[in-house]
Parts: sequence; C-alpha cells; structure tokens
Amino acid sequence: MKFPGSHVLSIGQFERGDIEKVFAVADRMEPYAHRRRITRVLEGAILGSMFFEASTRTRVSFGCAFNLLGGEVRETTGFEATSLQKGESLQDTARVLSGYSDVIVMRHPQAGSVAEFAAMSRVPVINGGDGANEHPSQALLDLYTIKKEMEHQGNAGIDNIHIAMIGDLKFGRTVHSLSKLLSLFNNITVTLISPDELRMPAEIVEQLRAAGHRVVESDNMEQSLSHVDIAYATRIQAERFASAEEAMLYRGRYRLNQAVYTQYCKPNTVIMHPLPRDSRAEANELDIDLDANPNLAIFRQADNGVLVRMALFALILDVADQVDTHARDVNWYTERRF
Amino acid sequence: MKFPGSHVLSIGQFERGDIEKVFAVADRMEPYAHRRRITRVLEGAILGSMFFEASTRTRVSFGCAFNLLGGEVRETTGFEATSLQKGESLQDTARVLSGYSDVIVMRHPQAGSVAEFAAMSRVPVINGGDGANEHPSQALLDLYTIKKEMEHQGNAGIDNIHIAMIGDLKFGRTVHSLSKLLSLFNNITVTLISPDELRMPAEIVEQLRAAGHRVVESDNMEQSLSHVDIAYATRIQAERFASAEEAMLYRGRYRLNQAVYTQYCKPNTVIMHPLPRDSRAEANELDIDLDANPNLAIFRQADNGVLVRMALFALILDVADQVDTHARDVNWYTERRF
Amino acid sequence: MKFPGSHVLSIGQFERGDIEKVFAVADRMEPYAHRRRITRVLEGAILGSMFFEASTRTRVSFGCAFNLLGGEVRETTGFEATSLQKGESLQDTARVLSGYSDVIVMRHPQAGSVAEFAAMSRVPVINGGDGANEHPSQALLDLYTIKKEMEHQGNAGIDNIHIAMIGDLKFGRTVHSLSKLLSLFNNITVTLISPDELRMPAEIVEQLRAAGHRVVESDNMEQSLSHVDIAYATRIQAERFASAEEAMLYRGRYRLNQAVYTQYCKPNTVIMHPLPRDSRAEANELDIDLDANPNLAIFRQADNGVLVRMALFALILDVADQVDTHARDVNWYTERRF
Repeated sequence: MKFPGSHVLSIGQFERGDIEKVFAVADRMEPYAHRRRITRVLEGAILGSMFFEASTRTRVSFGCAFNLLGGEVRETTGFEATSLQKGESLQDTARVLSGYSDVIVMRHPQAGSVAEFAAMSRVPVINGGDGANEHPSQALLDLYTIKKEMEHQGNAGIDNIHIAMIGDLKFGRTVHSLSKLLSLFNNITVTLISPDELRMPAEIVEQLRAAGHRVVESDNMEQSLSHVDIAYATRIQAERFASAEEAMLYRGRYRLNQAVYTQYCKPNTVIMHPLPRDSRAEANELDIDLDANPNLAIFRQADNGVLVRMALFALILDVADQVDTHARDVNWYTERRF
Repeated sequence: MKFPGSHVLSIGQFERGDIEKVFAVADRMEPYAHRRRITRVLEGAILGSMFFEASTRTRVSFGCAFNLLGGEVRETTGFEATSLQKGESLQDTARVLSGYSDVIVMRHPQAGSVAEFAAMSRVPVINGGDGANEHPSQALLDLYTIKKEMEHQGNAGIDNIHIAMIGDLKFGRTVHSLSKLLSLFNNITVTLISPDELRMPAEIVEQLRAAGHRVVESDNMEQSLSHVDIAYATRIQAERFASAEEAMLYRGRYRLNQAVYTQYCKPNTVIMHPLPRDSRAEANELDIDLDANPNLAIFRQADNGVLVRMALFALILDVADQVDTHARDVNWYTERRF
Repeated sequence: MKFPGSHVLSIGQFERGDIEKVFAVADRMEPYAHRRRITRVLEGAILGSMFFEASTRTRVSFGCAFNLLGGEVRETTGFEATSLQKGESLQDTARVLSGYSDVIVMRHPQAGSVAEFAAMSRVPVINGGDGANEHPSQALLDLYTIKKEMEHQGNAGIDNIHIAMIGDLKFGRTVHSLSKLLSLFNNITVTLISPDELRMPAEIVEQLRAAGHRVVESDNMEQSLSHVDIAYATRIQAERFASAEEAMLYRGRYRLNQAVYTQYCKPNTVIMHPLPRDSRAEANELDIDLDANPNLAIFRQADNGVLVRMALFALILDVADQVDTHARDVNWYTERRF
C-alpha cells in the first residue's frame, strides 16, 4: 500500500508492514491527542465529512482527529441528499463534492457505495462504514489497542496472543474485520464463543487457520476464558435479525462481569468491546461492575480511535514527518479527570 | 468556585465573587466580540457542542464565542443518538465523547441529564439548558446586561436596583434563575407582575426576601411600572401548558409598548427580554414600536451572551490572562450597520 | 456596487464593471482553491451559514470557500428554527443571529425572505437561494465558466458568443439569471430551445433583445445546435409542476449525448449544466457518454463556484488585496486524480 493519496476502503488493502507503519505514526500522535502539545501541520486543509447514516462517535472522532492536526472540517449529515433524489448519480456527486476538500471520510448505509464514490473522487476517501461491509478504521483501532495493552503488560505485541471473541460472531462486522487483520500476524490462538446459530462465518475461520492460527469454537463462555489474553465482547446486532423476538433469544446469553472474570479469567486478561455496550438488564454483555477493573480497556480503545485516525490522515496526506515541526505546547487547562 | 477545569451546571455554584470575576473577564472580551481585535489564545482547542434539543441561538452563540477565542467546534445536533437507542448508558456516552474535545457544552431536554453526563466526563461541561431545570449562561448574561445598562446610566451596578419581572413567572426558567442570582446582591426591589395563576414559585420569593430584598407581587402591569429601573418582560411558555387554549388565556395579558412606556415608566427604564419575543398579534408582549427606544436592551442582551460565554470558556480553560497576548487587530471590513 | 460591506441579494445589483471585478479576483483565487497555496487572510473571521432549506453542494461550496480564505464556519441547517415557531419575527432573528458572525450566507425556501433578513442584519448577507427567486452566486459562476471556457479556446470572453439554453426555460432559475447577466454584455446570440409550454418568460427575452442581442426560439434541439459556442442544458424542474405526470411529458424530450454532439455541434462547443443532471433513463438530459468529451465543462463549472464565492467573500470583507500577503505553499499531498 502506497499511503500518500491512497483511499482507505477495506482492511484487505493492508499488509503487515502497512499496519506497523500506521501504528508507529499513531504512537507519535499521543502528545497531541492527550493535549500536551498542539500541531498545526494541516492548517488550511479541509476534511469533507459525509455521514449519510448517523454515527455520532465515528463522525466526531474523525473530525476531532483532523482538528487535532490543525485542519478544518466541513460536515454533511443525514440524507439531505436532494441531488440524489433529483436523479444525480453517485459518480456525479463524487466528482462535485470531492472538489470541496482535501480528503473525505464517508459513511453510507449501502455496502460498496463508498468504494463507488471513491472511484470518481478527486481526493482520497476513507471508508467510515458502508453498511454491513467494512469499517477499516475500527478494525485498525481494535488491533492497535491489542498491541498497546499487550505491550503495557510487558508482552511483545500481537504475535503469539490468545484472544477470545464473544457474542454475535455472525453479524458483528468488527470481529470479522479484526479476524482478517489477525491473519497477518503469527501464532495466534482464537477462541470463538457464540451461540451455534451465530457462529463466525466459515471463510473467516478458514482464513485464520490458513494463517497458521489455532481456532477453537465453543458456545460456553465460562469454560473458554482461562488462558485468554484478550476477551473481546460484542453486542447482539439486534437490528440485523428478522425480528426483535429472534434477537431476544440471544441477548443476555453471555454476560461478562467481575464475578465471572475473577472465577474464570487469568489475572491480566484485557477486556475489549467495540462499543456501544448494551447495558440494559436483558442484555448487559459487559457489566458496569467491571468499570473499576484496570484491565477493562474499552474506553482506552475508543480513545485509540483518535490516534489511529490521526495517523491515517497524516499518512494519506503525507505529513507524518512534519507533525512535530509545526507544534508547540498547549497553553490551556488540560487536567483530565480519569 | 474554582474555575479552571470546573463544570458549569447550575447558577447555584456561583457566589458573588465568582460572578464579578466572570463579568470582569467578559468586559475584556469586548474588542474581540466587536471585531476590532482577534485572539488566537485557544488555537488548537476543541469545543464539543452537543445539542440533543434544538436551539439555534444558544448553539451558535457558544460556537461563535469559542471561535472568537481561536478554537474549533465539533457539533452534534438532534437525536442522532443511535448509541443510546442501542442500550448505551449516558455514562458510557459521556466517557467516550469527552475524549474528543477540551470542553463540552450540552443541551438536553431532560432535567438533570447534563449533570449526569458531566459526572462521567473527562473534560469540563457547561450546561446549555437541561429542560425546565437550568440554563446558567442565560442567567449570567441577563445579570451582566443589568450591570452594563445600569453602569451606562451612571449607576453603580446591580446593588440597589428596582426590577420588574413581567409575564409567565411560573414556568419562565430565566426569571427563576435571575432571581436566584439577584439574591447574591444587596438592597434590591423586585416587582413581580403576573396573572395570579402564573405567580413566581413561593420558594424563590422566599429566597429573595431572605436576602433582604423587597418583593411586591401584582397582577397589574401599568400600575407597577413607575420607579422601575429594569422591566424584564417574558413570553408565555405556551408549550408548558396543558393545552393551547389554556395558554391563550394568558397570551396578550401584558403588552408593553411605547405608549405604555411613555405613560407609566420613568424616562430611563431599561427593557429586557430573554428572547424570542412573541410578535404575533395575540401575544405581542413587547411591541416593535419600542425598537426605536434607546432603552430597549434586548439585542444588546443577546450580544452580551457572546461576551459571557467567552468569559466562561476563558476561565474554565484558564486562559483569561493570555487572551490579549495572542491577539492582533482585525484586517477585514467590520463596519456594523446599527 | 460598492463591495465592502454590501449584501449580495440579486444579480440586478451587478453592473458589468462589478462582474469584471469579481472575475478578476476569482482568477487570483485559483492557487488557493487548487491547493498549491494556502492563505490565512480571514483567520478569526466567522461565516454564519444558514440553510433553512437543504442544499448540500451550495452549502459546502460556500463553507469551503470561506475555509480556504482562513475563516471559520458556524452552520445551521434545516428548520430547527424553534424561535420562529415561538412567534419571533424574521427581523428579530436577523438582528440576533447577525451578532454571531462577520458575514452570512442564507438559503430559504421563500422568495424575498433573504432580502427581508438582510434588511435587519448587522453584517453583509449573501443570498444562497431564496425559492424560485434568486441565486446570484450560481449565475456568476455560470458566467465565469463561460468566460474561462471561451478564453481557453482563444476567444476574447463573453462578448460575441453564441449560447443555446436547452430544456425547462420556464421554471429554470439559472437560465433566467444567466440571461439577465448576459444582457450586460455585447453582441450575443441566444438560442432558446424548449417545449412550447416551457418557453423562456417574455420579459427576459425582451431584456435580451433590448440589450441588442439576437434571440431565436425553437423546440427542436438538433436543428438549433450548429454554430453554438455554449450549450447550456438544464433539468426539467419536476418539483415545480402540478403533478409528476405533467413533468413526465417533458422529461427526456431533449437528450444531449455524444452521437448528437458529433452530428450537430461544431467541434469545440462547450457543454454546461447547473447540476444536478438527471441521469435516470427517462430523463438523461446529458448522457454520461459525454464524460470523456473534453468540452464537457460541468465539473469545471462546479469547481468555479468555489473561486467565485471566494471572490465575493474577499470583496465584501475587503481583503482581496491582502490574500497573497497572508499566504504560503501547501505542505501536504495534493495530487489530484483527474
């Protein structure tokens, strides 16, 4: 992958070296994201943020990342898209709108639409989620979180870990993408915990095995958690089921809480979740009594999204090596509460 | 109140000294708000503007205030809040979203929700209105306007004034908050003019009296306006009544216009209103024939909102003393029409 | 027209000299719009962007233009306009909202509303479209495109051209405005191609003739295209007809494609369209097989909108002569794909 000017549409574009490059740049974004330093490296640049489907946190995370590099953001949200209603093709829309910014992030409910848009865009496009298809920056931030959490525990990184993925492995876009990325690394054990009806798609299991990884499938969470380095919980994607009743068959099936953690996990097991977690009583896949557990990484994971998105912008716009030269210390109050 | 890093959730947090500090900083913001100078003191800082309820002017006023200090604004409007629909707690939302900015302003239809959010936020939160509960920056800008208008007339400030509040004193959030703030000052006469059914809540009257103020209640506007320094008119909060018919019993009851002003008010009585004023014939609480009256302060009042909000940001982020050192003269056309 | 501080509400405000001034400044904006240079000339200035009617591309184009000059944008979209619902007059809204920015662009569904707003605004207002009435920046960018395309072909500019306007000339706001602007130039031939029921309004034809131009009306496209320098196609404004059925009588009547172009047009005829073009099979007024034709100017036309809007801002805020002194080279990747 040649970064400057590249679209980021799919995790399939990334080789291991590309990922390591993104992560190395993300590491260097920390002083800016943590408000110790500011950089103006992208002063004058414009991000076109086009969210044709609602997603507050992804949208704000991208916008924040671009602002932290010194750039401006012009946003479009919702289907204000009168031009499409007037019969305009997505290609025309792309050619026009791409004249208004230096880089675009786009979310769209329809699988493949972002790639179609990118094909006619005159500036690089980042896929911010196209329906059930891809959301590459989410997959990268998940993997980046694994790396940082493992390093924090004194481990070497992503190779040789044991990860459990828990919940709706059939419809969960994030566990599919993460699995594909893990296939680029070495000697990983993957425990897949789901109801039989919501198992990980066979081709993804196959890809993990083809990479030389060990894959174990189970429908019993408690018996599968020992020896696990990373427990990656997910939400039942209720909106993807034929009916709310069908989704209710599975919501609440797996409930990770401090008691389960204490009894079945080894002491430093890191807990991840792509968020939002469903905290309603009938689901509660990740109990709030874990909030006091220092190995609960879910909010660090969300924070890492800003670092990874800053890194993507910096690499695509080819300013990674200039970030520190347009920088100075922050001059306002920044003491964080947690 | 210790400003740097503090939330601003309720006027109950403010002591008299805090208010005087806010107003002193607001005074110094005037060259920037009036576009004679620009400052870049918050260059690189991000305001997270989250309006889960519509409010164009409050939202734009806060955003403008932050831009005038040199910072960026990332906005969320309406209930795009899919994550809450997916079962996420407001606490989780707060922990995630507060990672994307240096300070947050939030409006929410539900009383108490902003405080609940702030409890888990990692950055300072300003309450931009939580239902019928609080809207502290509005109360501060009202009081700041009283101070400036009185000083403009050669008076000492807020102590010793005579203020009349007119209209829907039962449901009007602004007159409740302003009354509480007035309780921090000395020797004030408060005339409360309302229909009997829409009187000021007893505990607020009690608080004013406990502060040593004189309180007079009346349902007759004309007979109560002589000797008044400030006439603070309000709108009937029609949306708070059981029916439109019930609200219609009160709309139009008090109509302040130039003829009434000339006949009943002393020459320099200042007219205020939190806006919007209802200019429809059946209400018309403040006639447009007052627009030529130099004592009509309602638009200066709206303008003061920018100064007060700049002051709050500057104090919370601890840059009040740096504002003038990151400044220069404006270089574009700024001649105002009025 | 005296630019600094002026509203831009109608093309009727512009004399030929004003237009030439706008175009001269637009020419100088090219290095910034094409991302070779950045300027910070409006750093600290705020654009109030108020779109009370949806229009993604006009809104983003204005916002982009202001950002490219270094300014900030505070946006309001849709009818979040609760204050109007509470009985506030548009005049009050204007006086309050105009305190929050240095210049305003406003779109509103109702003809005349932007001028009404501007009358009470304390800052300059640009009309971004008020219903069927005016959209002056669109007319200016159309004319600017004609000038640039003609110059690119070695012609002198706008005088002496032959232009054909094709389609719904009755309801098409852009062809009305463009015709009025052409009346300021010399010796133009205008061929008006439309169904008889959708002819150009008589008073506009009269204005063209009064300017000394030749006007030919026809309902046959093919026979009218020879000798034409500019073919300006338009969309049937289906939303303006009494019924969808009635609009269907006209959609698809004129279809310009490469075969028609090759057979009937002279070699360098420039094709324009205000966009969006209706690419659905039943309309398809401008076939995508023309996308490979170098004389298809429709995307250059959209790009020119940014230049013209930058020029309007620079002239209204009186910074046209300072743009280049607050500038530097771009430091990020900007290689365009087309």
